[in-house]
Parts: sequence; C-alpha cells; structure tokens
Amino acid sequence: MDQLQLFSNIVRKRSFLCVGLDSEIDKIPSFLLKLKDPVFAFNRRIIDATHKYAVAYKPNIAFYESSGANGWLTLETTVKYIRKEYPDIFIIADAKRGDIGNTSRMYAKAFFKNMQFDAVTIAPYMGEDSVVPFLSYEDKWAILLALTSNKGADDFQYHNEDGIRLFERVLTVSKKWGTVNNLMFVIGATRAEMFRDIRKIVPEHFLLVPGVGAQGGSLQEVAKYGMTSKCGLLVNSSRNIIFADNSRNFDKVAAEKAREMQQEMERYLAEKNLV
Amino acid sequence: MDQLQLFSNIVRKRSFLCVGLDSEIDKIPSFLLKLKDPVFAFNRRIIDATHKYAVAYKPNIAFYESSGANGWLTLETTVKYIRKEYPDIFIIADAKRGDIGNTSRMYAKAFFKNMQFDAVTIAPYMGEDSVVPFLSYEDKWAILLALTSNKGADDFQYHNEDGIRLFERVLTVSKKWGTVNNLMFVIGATRAEMFRDIRKIVPEHFLLVPGVGAQGGSLQEVAKYGMTSKCGLLVNSSRNIIFADNSRNFDKVAAEKAREMQQEMERYLAEKNLV
Repeated sequence: MDQLQLFSNIVRKRSFLCVGLDSEIDKIPSFLLKLKDPVFAFNRRIIDATHKYAVAYKPNIAFYESSGANGWLTLETTVKYIRKEYPDIFIIADAKRGDIGNTSRMYAKAFFKNMQFDAVTIAPYMGEDSVVPFLSYEDKWAILLALTSNKGADDFQYHNEDGIRLFERVLTVSKKWGTVNNLMFVIGATRAEMFRDIRKIVPEHFLLVPGVGAQGGSLQEVAKYGMTSKCGLLVNSSRNIIFADNSRNFDKVAAEKAREMQQEMERYLAEKNLV
Repeated sequence: MDQLQLFSNIVRKRSFLCVGLDSEIDKIPSFLLKLKDPVFAFNRRIIDATHKYAVAYKPNIAFYESSGANGWLTLETTVKYIRKEYPDIFIIADAKRGDIGNTSRMYAKAFFKNMQFDAVTIAPYMGEDSVVPFLSYEDKWAILLALTSNKGADDFQYHNEDGIRLFERVLTVSKKWGTVNNLMFVIGATRAEMFRDIRKIVPEHFLLVPGVGAQGGSLQEVAKYGMTSKCGLLVNSSRNIIFADNSRNFDKVAAEKAREMQQEMERYLAEKNLV
C-alpha cells in the first residue's frame, strides 16, 4: 500500500483511526477465557465491530510475546484474519525493533514475509543499517520512533545539539533513507505543541500518533497542527476502544467508541476539505 | 545472579566470554536439518561443546522470531536446556526491546517470568519508564544500548549537547535507575577508543561488548581500557564461534574457537591480577 492508497482509504471511511490491539489476556472479558484462543476470539469480535471506523489495526507485539509460542500463533491468526476479511486495512506490527543489519533483516522477515504486516515500528537508536532492511520490501513501511507519548520521552529525545533536538535529528537524517511511501514517524499526541516544528521537517510523511485518550493527548490539536493535504495522520487508540466495556457486548461498546472517534475525525477532515 | 556471583564465575572459568546464539537456520550444518528441531539440536551441541569456556550465552531473538511460533519454542527449549544443564551460566535475551511502561512490563514478563533469562538488552530511546519494568525483577538485569558496534551508531549516538554525547547522557541518566547489580550497558568493541571516557561515567558497571572478530573490534583494547577490579566485561562472539565450521565436527571447531578466546581472556585477567 502506498501513500495515495492509504489516503483513499481514509477518504472513503472518513477516518484516520488506528485501533491498537493491545489485547492483554488479563483484561479481556472473562466469558471468552473458556474458548480455545481467547485473545483471537476477542480480536476477531473487536475487528468485526470496528473495521468500518478504522483504516488501520496495530497489535502491540509485547502483548502476544508475553504468552510465548501460543501468543505468537494468536498474532499470526489475527493478521491472517484481517488480511482475508478486510484486505484494505493497514496492519502495523508495533514491535519497536531495531538491531544491526543482518539481524534487522531477520525481524523484517518475521513481520513482512512470514506474516503479512504492512508496517513495523522501529527504534532509531542504532541508526541507518538497523532501519534500511525494513525499507527494502516493496509496499511495506518502516515507522520510526521520533517523539514518543510517554514521560520517558523527555530523558533523551530532546537532547539538543546546536538547537537541533534528537527527535528532529532523527527526522532530518532518516527521511533520506526512505520516501513518503515507505517511511512514517511516531509522534505522540501528548506532544501536540511540537507538530508545527515537526511538519517543517517532514511536511508530507504520514505520522503514527499514539497517546490520544488514556494518555491525555488531544485529537483536535493533533489534527490542527499535524494534518497534511493527504491527511498524513494515523491516530491510534487502544485501551479506550478495546477495553471500554467488559460485558458480553464489549464489541458493540468498542464500535461505539470507535464511531465517536471516526465522527470527530470526519469533522477535521471536512474542515480541511479532504472529504 | 548479582555482580559478585558473575565475577566469581568469571574467575572460576578464567573467561568473560559470551557466546552469541545467532542460530540462523540457513547457516547451520545441513545434516541437522532432518531433525525435528534443527536449531535446538545445533544450540545444544554448541552449548555442550563451549560451556567450559563461556560464562554467558546470548540468543539474539530475531533469529528465533523469524521462524514464528516454532522459533519461539526453540528459544524456550534452549533456555530451559541451559538452565537445567549449566545453572551457573548467565543467559541474555538479545531483544533490544523498549516500550511505554505497561508494555515493557509485558516484555519483562516474556523474558523473565515465562522464560528464565537473566538479562534482556533494551533500547534506551523511550527513556526511564520503558526501562524500569525490567529492573523490578529480583536478580534480573537490564542491559541498555549505549554505544553500539555498527556503522549506524554514528547517526545518533554521538549527538552532542554541550560536550555530552548522547551515549554519555544515556549512561549518566540511566545509571540512576538501577545499580551495578541489575544494570549493564552495551558498548561495541569497535569503539575501543571510547572505553576510557565510558569508564569515567560507569566505573563499576558490567559492559556487554559485541563486535570483536567479524566486526573488527580488538579484545586486547577492550580489556586494556574496559576492565575493572571485578572484570566488568562480557565480551560476545557469535558467528566466529558458532559458524566456524559446517561439518559434522562443527561443535568441536566451535569449542576450539571458544577456547582460543578464553585463553586470550585468561591472559588479560592475569595481567590485572584477577586470576
């Protein structure tokens, strides 16, 4: 999927919502636990209920890896299900991987060849050779951490050399490694005041934006300062949607939450004359 | 295992060698491929042959993850085998993980609770809350990337604020999060000229040192500038040992390579009067 296809999905669904499948087994409704693969059963119902309002899903790999080999099977089953039932959905492995070249190639194989993810999130600390193996797959994306939504972002990401903060250096240096069709950046919604500076460096790249909702970021601010002529935003919500309810109707409540976000997103898209 | 126990193993074996189990299925001897779990069969023979010369093993998770759920089972089996047969060996998950707090907790669970790793390597980019979940397990270690051995280390790790390079900031800031008994740092052997500066910031912490051999780093230089009164070094070698030979005697050749490194290490330990 390239940038234009992603944008056309956004226009069609009037949404730039990414639903985070942080499907922690201790938090899913207990009636599912008697099923053979409770986490997949949970994901399937969440996906069936919310796909109309979302253009992307983002399983965070930690929540699967923490169940070992079985968790890995659940992840594979989930990706296969989305790919088969909803082929236009963009699927992100939120893995935050990154290693020396020959090792990053193995991670790229795991997510792009063995599983049919469209994108993988990557930590930039190890530099170019840790990222480029993910950019060598056609129609696949690397999503580089730039300015994250958590408190710990303050520890290193603002490290400032001659007025250039580390996250700005990550943007400036790494945008040469890929294109607007295979490289995105993670920018936390809790850093909305930074979106103007960031758009000066990467005016057209898509940004994956976590941190709306539970973490306190404002969707309105993100849209105001971050939106481009092709939207350029995928805004993620995880817990606020998937764990909104714990009853047998959890999927309907999740759909309602996703629809609320979609409707707010539609307003911002309309304000910019994109829908 | 605390620092003193690790040091006592080093003294007993006269070695600070870590063998990297980067056991790529395409590179193991072909006669193993007819077995049920060829990579575990390979690992077992490598471990049985080299354990006398090594104080640590370090599977790089990418090489297991790239085989999906089966690879994960191979990893689990390998860790169980080492734990059972050679309980004094220090086992490192070279995973380079790191995410927001509630997610890092899931990774810590995967490696410390579900599997009995002693340590996990972590990328520091997301800061304190991405690291501390790994430090909350008793007798377990976080090993933070500081200055890596690859070319891409130059892209961001030297980003310099008022004379303090990013890798130095990582050392200075993060050493407050843990102790010399639960926190180590990755410093590439290819950066030997930096060990003096690094030892000024972390005079007593253990350093995990990749990059000797295939990547060109010098064991002698690393020992000269990096060794502390409790050794303070785990020097890793992967391909040079495990893929030294491709015949039915691959394990004997691997043992010979490991023994050569052990003997060189013994000399440096003796020069510092540690053995």
